[in-house]
Amino acid sequence: MAHKFISEIAPGEVVDDIYLVKEPILRSTSRGDLYIAMFICDKTGQMNGRVWQASEAMYKELPKPGYARIKGRSEVYQNQMQIVINIATVVDAKKIKVEDFLAHTDKDVDKMFEDVMQMVGGIKNKQLRQLMDAFLGDEKLMGKFRSCPGGMSMHHDCIGGLLEHTWNMLRVASAILPLYPQVQADLVLAGIFIHDMGKTEELAFDTAFSYTDSGQLIGHITKTVLMIHKKADALAGKGTPIDAQVLDTLSHIVLSHHGEYEFGSPKIPATAEAFMVYYIDDLDAKMNQVTHLIEDERGDSNWTGWQKPLETKLYRKRIE
Amino acid sequence: MAHKFISEIAPGEVVDDIYLVKEPILRSTSRGDLYIAMFICDKTGQMNGRVWQASEAMYKELPKPGYARIKGRSEVYQNQMQIVINIATVVDAKKIKVEDFLAHTDKDVDKMFEDVMQMVGGIKNKQLRQLMDAFLGDEKLMGKFRSCPGGMSMHHDCIGGLLEHTWNMLRVASAILPLYPQVQADLVLAGIFIHDMGKTEELAFDTAFSYTDSGQLIGHITKTVLMIHKKADALAGKGTPIDAQVLDTLSHIVLSHHGEYEFGSPKIPATAEAFMVYYIDDLDAKMNQVTHLIEDERGDSNWTGWQKPLETKLYRKRIE
Amino acid sequence: MAHKFISEIAPGEVVDDIYLVKEPILRSTSRGDLYIAMFICDKTGQMNGRVWQASEAMYKELPKPGYARIKGRSEVYQNQMQIVINIATVVDAKKIKVEDFLAHTDKDVDKMFEDVMQMVGGIKNKQLRQLMDAFLGDEKLMGKFRSCPGGMSMHHDCIGGLLEHTWNMLRVASAILPLYPQVQADLVLAGIFIHDMGKTEELAFDTAFSYTDSGQLIGHITKTVLMIHKKADALAGKGTPIDAQVLDTLSHIVLSHHGEYEFGSPKIPATAEAFMVYYIDDLDAKMNQVTHLIEDERGDSNWTGWQKPLETKLYRKRIE
Amino acid sequence: MAHKFISEIAPGEVVDDIYLVKEPILRSTSRGDLYIAMFICDKTGQMNGRVWQASEAMYKELPKPGYARIKGRSEVYQNQMQIVINIATVVDAKKIKVEDFLAHTDKDVDKMFEDVMQMVGGIKNKQLRQLMDAFLGDEKLMGKFRSCPGGMSMHHDCIGGLLEHTWNMLRVASAILPLYPQVQADLVLAGIFIHDMGKTEELAFDTAFSYTDSGQLIGHITKTVLMIHKKADALAGKGTPIDAQVLDTLSHIVLSHHGEYEFGSPKIPATAEAFMVYYIDDLDAKMNQVTHLIEDERGDSNWTGWQKPLETKLYRKRIE
Amino acid sequence: MAHKFISEIAPGEVVDDIYLVKEPILRSTSRGDLYIAMFICDKTGQMNGRVWQASEAMYKELPKPGYARIKGRSEVYQNQMQIVINIATVVDAKKIKVEDFLAHTDKDVDKMFEDVMQMVGGIKNKQLRQLMDAFLGDEKLMGKFRSCPGGMSMHHDCIGGLLEHTWNMLRVASAILPLYPQVQADLVLAGIFIHDMGKTEELAFDTAFSYTDSGQLIGHITKTVLMIHKKADALAGKGTPIDAQVLDTLSHIVLSHHGEYEFGSPKIPATAEAFMVYYIDDLDAKMNQVTHLIEDERGDSNWTGWQKPLETKLYRKRIE
Amino acid sequence: MAHKFISEIAPGEVVDDIYLVKEPILRSTSRGDLYIAMFICDKTGQMNGRVWQASEAMYKELPKPGYARIKGRSEVYQNQMQIVINIATVVDAKKIKVEDFLAHTDKDVDKMFEDVMQMVGGIKNKQLRQLMDAFLGDEKLMGKFRSCPGGMSMHHDCIGGLLEHTWNMLRVASAILPLYPQVQADLVLAGIFIHDMGKTEELAFDTAFSYTDSGQLIGHITKTVLMIHKKADALAGKGTPIDAQVLDTLSHIVLSHHGEYEFGSPKIPATAEAFMVYYIDDLDAKMNQVTHLIEDERGDSNWTGWQKPLETKLYRKRIE
Repeated sequence: MAHKFISEIAPGEVVDDIYLVKEPILRSTSRGDLYIAMFICDKTGQMNGRVWQASEAMYKELPKPGYARIKGRSEVYQNQMQIVINIATVVDAKKIKVEDFLAHTDKDVDKMFEDVMQMVGGIKNKQLRQLMDAFLGDEKLMGKFRSCPGGMSMHHDCIGGLLEHTWNMLRVASAILPLYPQVQADLVLAGIFIHDMGKTEELAFDTAFSYTDSGQLIGHITKTVLMIHKKADALAGKGTPIDAQVLDTLSHIVLSHHGEYEFGSPKIPATAEAFMVYYIDDLDAKMNQVTHLIEDERGDSNWTGWQKPLETKLYRKRIE
Repeated sequence: MAHKFISEIAPGEVVDDIYLVKEPILRSTSRGDLYIAMFICDKTGQMNGRVWQASEAMYKELPKPGYARIKGRSEVYQNQMQIVINIATVVDAKKIKVEDFLAHTDKDVDKMFEDVMQMVGGIKNKQLRQLMDAFLGDEKLMGKFRSCPGGMSMHHDCIGGLLEHTWNMLRVASAILPLYPQVQADLVLAGIFIHDMGKTEELAFDTAFSYTDSGQLIGHITKTVLMIHKKADALAGKGTPIDAQVLDTLSHIVLSHHGEYEFGSPKIPATAEAFMVYYIDDLDAKMNQVTHLIEDERGDSNWTGWQKPLETKLYRKRIE
Repeated sequence: MAHKFISEIAPGEVVDDIYLVKEPILRSTSRGDLYIAMFICDKTGQMNGRVWQASEAMYKELPKPGYARIKGRSEVYQNQMQIVINIATVVDAKKIKVEDFLAHTDKDVDKMFEDVMQMVGGIKNKQLRQLMDAFLGDEKLMGKFRSCPGGMSMHHDCIGGLLEHTWNMLRVASAILPLYPQVQADLVLAGIFIHDMGKTEELAFDTAFSYTDSGQLIGHITKTVLMIHKKADALAGKGTPIDAQVLDTLSHIVLSHHGEYEFGSPKIPATAEAFMVYYIDDLDAKMNQVTHLIEDERGDSNWTGWQKPLETKLYRKRIE
Repeated sequence: MAHKFISEIAPGEVVDDIYLVKEPILRSTSRGDLYIAMFICDKTGQMNGRVWQASEAMYKELPKPGYARIKGRSEVYQNQMQIVINIATVVDAKKIKVEDFLAHTDKDVDKMFEDVMQMVGGIKNKQLRQLMDAFLGDEKLMGKFRSCPGGMSMHHDCIGGLLEHTWNMLRVASAILPLYPQVQADLVLAGIFIHDMGKTEELAFDTAFSYTDSGQLIGHITKTVLMIHKKADALAGKGTPIDAQVLDTLSHIVLSHHGEYEFGSPKIPATAEAFMVYYIDDLDAKMNQVTHLIEDERGDSNWTGWQKPLETKLYRKRIE
Repeated sequence: MAHKFISEIAPGEVVDDIYLVKEPILRSTSRGDLYIAMFICDKTGQMNGRVWQASEAMYKELPKPGYARIKGRSEVYQNQMQIVINIATVVDAKKIKVEDFLAHTDKDVDKMFEDVMQMVGGIKNKQLRQLMDAFLGDEKLMGKFRSCPGGMSMHHDCIGGLLEHTWNMLRVASAILPLYPQVQADLVLAGIFIHDMGKTEELAFDTAFSYTDSGQLIGHITKTVLMIHKKADALAGKGTPIDAQVLDTLSHIVLSHHGEYEFGSPKIPATAEAFMVYYIDDLDAKMNQVTHLIEDERGDSNWTGWQKPLETKLYRKRIE
Repeated sequence: MAHKFISEIAPGEVVDDIYLVKEPILRSTSRGDLYIAMFICDKTGQMNGRVWQASEAMYKELPKPGYARIKGRSEVYQNQMQIVINIATVVDAKKIKVEDFLAHTDKDVDKMFEDVMQMVGGIKNKQLRQLMDAFLGDEKLMGKFRSCPGGMSMHHDCIGGLLEHTWNMLRVASAILPLYPQVQADLVLAGIFIHDMGKTEELAFDTAFSYTDSGQLIGHITKTVLMIHKKADALAGKGTPIDAQVLDTLSHIVLSHHGEYEFGSPKIPATAEAFMVYYIDDLDAKMNQVTHLIEDERGDSNWTGWQKPLETKLYRKRIE
């Protein structure tokens, strides 16, 4: 039977299908009765879901997040559709095609990954090349790298987003490195390829996008540096150790690529290469963020709504 | 007679030649006697100069800055060479080849300017093209544009520096614009060409580099916007007015290209094009600043000294 | 037929009258149906308005903001009155008396303008006087100057507010200038008269108060400096040019009158006159803001609610 | 015998006169020998003084600061005059006319104090009037109030400076209060009169200007509030208690008159009166600071040197 | 008759009992009708209360906050219980056991106070001891000190909270002072005992927790310093004056114990003792805040919700 | 022959002994001649050293820092002793007793280390205990841990300083953990023991104190986390893996122990244990810093000089 998409549900319908359940919370009414609030999602949107007369046991069974078969009835409440849920039964995520439930890059993942391999393959420094090959040859990791979002919400927040962001940063670097001949191109390319690799462990993206516990405690920057050293240890074990200076210079790019302490970088850029990776990262992220905000705005106003992270509205009337 | 370069003066020599005089200050000793302190410069360096037993009248005659024939004697004082000046006679700046006294870009100015004309010439929007042509056709302004430094000290602080910075920004933009097809290329190219044009009025660079009174009171950002409107008024007078939207969008790029209020931008970027010009400006400035700081450091230490504006030392040992 | 004021509409009434429509937004329900939310206003207050079963075409026709004949029915929803709109037909703003729809200064506009002319008329510096006369003689601009609000929401946010603020600043300056004889009175008076003149272009206030596109892209500070130079160009064309120093010193007052970079001033005060204008502006704005917040608070509490821009509650119990 | 002024001492002279000694420091050379560095001052300027071959005992005897009879010889060292001191004998400060040694307001102290009494005397609120009279009637305190500087260095840093600042603030308030009829004039006048009264305890100014220990530990803001409550306690003891609300509202003005937490105000303005006192204080301080910096600059440059607290140079060329 | 607890009220019940009324606000509907919104509380929770068809007179009679006999009917509105009130009659707070209505420390107040007396009793410095005894012997004040909350919401926000916080800080100090022998233990112990004593006047806690007018205008830091000086004046009156240095050093600890200007300290720590009190205060407050946030989180998530004042979520899964 | 200590060298002496050479810099006079400036140190102090007529080759041979036999002559220059060096010959650091040249903790290193072993030995959690034992059993690392300074200059900047700081933090934790029973003591103790372990790699301290290249690029926080994971990998290799949660929670304490992003922490505290380690670290560092600044001040002033990192002078007159 075909999936009933969120966008197709009309008020007053009986609902019985599999949806993605996000952020269930157990709350009590002022009377002390328990109920559960959650979001019911697929790739066409999300609705509020409510289980009245809930219990702690019911709450504990719910995926946080994950898939569930939802039985209930839709209604309009305060101008918004919601589903009053009678039964929510957990469904094994393995039986689900995640692409039906999560946003996905509109670029060709295979093509982008091939481009990345080619651009990173152009690194001439032998040790950096060995280290990068150790990453490229780690199939499990590369599998995650191809799917991982670039972030939770700000930019490239879709399946394949991390790859798309890394791919485009590599393209920018390849285009401008000839204009800055003093900058060590190998370090820039390796630094870009690796810079957010720790996000594959910081984020969970097999069902909904969320932070892992480990990701929240440690962060993707530190995770990336740990990955670099683990790969280097393995190479040393095989008799091809990486010089400390190479590891330190590359790790420095990762540790400083947010540019300022207040953005969570424990170091600030101290090499030309670290500055370049920081600027390309910021440029590509903002271009993605700004163009999406402009495209996603409904209506025909010349301005988007107020964008808090950018501290401005965006003007979108073109002169072309 | 050949010019005696600053770097060639030995202690105890009689000095009699033309030099650039900078920042003369009239001071009084604790006894109340007046003396004048100044810098005596040419392109090989600078020395302290002192006129003992000075008077207000002598001080007033001195150029601030400018050229003077300096007669005196060199001596070593506190480990530094200085010149005790007997007579300082003002010399007409027109008789001087400024290139002998001020640092100069090591790129070919004619070639860069040709490149700029070609890249700006690629603008397709008719009105933007007309406006840019009005700038490119203003010979007096373009003369200044080819000589003006990019700044007083941070980056591109040499004759031709503004042109070099603008030229390289245009090259970066040309290289990456194809990667961001939603961004209006014409606005980015015009915005880059024009973004610091007001520096030709903010700075004086015919003798030494300094701020003009007008430059300090108004600033190059506002001066650039005034220039745009003056050119547009002239075009309107000729029957080819520029749409307000074009002027506003271009002016917005200029007004926001420092990126944040605290860096003197009265507006922050609100268009994709303004963001792109801001990032390319910052990237090119930092690359110039960082690579020069690394190259200019004496000795063989792996690190430069502390760089206050960057809040770090710079690491300069290469892995290549 | 007499206008049915917003404050007079009871629940369940049939509504059919002209109102000011503000901030219409096209939204979709979670089901995908479109509806339009907006505010329906006159000078007695505002209500939510809703058009269910809306279309993009209907949304595009609505003024943003502007006047419309609203046909519908009032209802109470979530403790608030709202109007469910059946038909909204655009009405020509020219047929409307704007005073019936927008807040207005409680001072006498003609009297204030006369006072302003007299105080500015006291300027003795010939060039400043010519420049100010060029503004005072620009009837179209002075018409706007008499109506323009002083701002969108913080202080003097009413028709005639800019005039009232300018008038009171001139009165403060006239009262205290004799106490600071070193300060150049002419520059202070001219600076105050002109300081926010660009708001007449930054804001739209013929229907509701809003920012113009040009105002948001450029800002009133830059607009004011452009106005000064346009007037000076015209005077120069008539053979009475204004010295660059006069233009720069006056423009500097405008460019620095927010006092700090973070408040959007591209320059910070560098003359005694610029400091004085900045302080008088801030004082008069805060006095207006604070006394209105105290007066507008309902109930008899000794304290107003929390005032976010002031980071405090206000104490309003008097000792008198 | 006439005093030999600092400005009259020539190099190589034998010196034997009374001077103000400031900031003596006991230092050791890298060899371990002790010497004492200090400033030797009178109202015409200051010189470095050095006691070579010093001892802890000699250091302990020196006033910190205070008057001493200095015997030694002047010399020029590194372009500056200094005095090599053989003997420094403490002199009783009571035998000295302090006016010969410290800068003094150029206004008439008696006339200013009379004006202050008259303006404060205009307070109509009975309790505020009683409280102010308790201050005005405290002869010892008023003696200090007439002499105390307005600060250590920023503005009004001269004998009589606190009075001059208070007097001028009261004149500004008297001039503009009629323009803000909602503001309680009595509170503003009392608040201004009292606002920095604690400086009479925070600063020592009988010899040189310095902070008292108590002043540094507690600060003039808290000291002023303690004074207010001490006067109120005394009045209560005499059967004329002051209402808590009057004390709190007045104390609030004192506690918030620096305007922001970061400037040491433990409260920020929460009444119209507190805002007005804050603005008048800041305005009068800045006008004094700016006009003095402009006047004190030597030479004929259009700009003063960089003013760190103002984050700018000051432009001082007049258009008049 | 037994009190009907908030948590026991079911929808649709007739309500007639005494409750704590908080934050009544007089509002008008868009139609201009007045109504009153308020909170109805006891120690089991709170509900919204509404009086429709209200008048200014009814509003004025309501306690703000205080106890009232509430007659009305409960209903569910927007998923929340609320009470539609017919009559609200003020009840004398003296007839109420406040413990039934406000949260209370779970520690033994008598035992804690005894511990405090013993730890403060260990002070050896005679004058500090006398001063502390003056506080400990002030029965009325100590009564308030035993009940006062430690704050409005951040930490120790319960009856007895100030005592619990002070008691625990004294215990921490007693434990670590032996490890820092250079630190003057007497000053630290006295400073901790007294540091927030002014909260007994800043806060009202006989009914609900709220700020007093005086507390908001003056703040607990200044109030504490005033208390210290009042006690010292009284001791001086009895012939046992306290040295100014002792008062200043102790007051400095109070004035600087928030550690930074931006947190409302008019002084920052300048003694080892002031630093220690500041750190112990911050440590104990954060430990209380963090452990309560972790304990109070409903559900079994490893993380609490976002904690704005801490700028993070809290991880609460234990490894034990 | 006995070492000639720096403090014993008189002006005009012939010098020929081994000293620690720090921060040699190659400079050119304004004439273009090269000279070398450096510091000549032992534990009694330091002097300037100068090699006139230097060459790049001489500069390259000098240790940076390290030991050299210095032949030259002492002289007084600008009130300071300096040594004009004729010959500087590098000396093998292994032949030097470092204790003669660097400041050393005044506590008993063996006793402190024993205490640390005992306190860390009290950890009950099996996995944390295994991990800590892996550190304690690493003799080479523990050797460095016993010598490493706690920092370059702020606090505990002496041989053994890191151990002293860690030891005292463990003592503070042991004293106060019983007062906070909800806090997991094992994590706090392990977190403290490990928190700055990476400083053993960040700093070089075999000759003078300096940052290593790797330390400056990576920082001690990241180095510590890498160490933890290396030890855990080794344990996993031996069949006793550490749970990811234990590693993450411990690493989180390390990553957040500077408390705020701006102090270089890539994470901010999100557990009670992380908060406690952060506060104890800050408290112990400040107590060490403040008490040393107070003790090290020469003379008998009640105040130290201005302490820039603390933004205050320190008051050091005791009431005891």
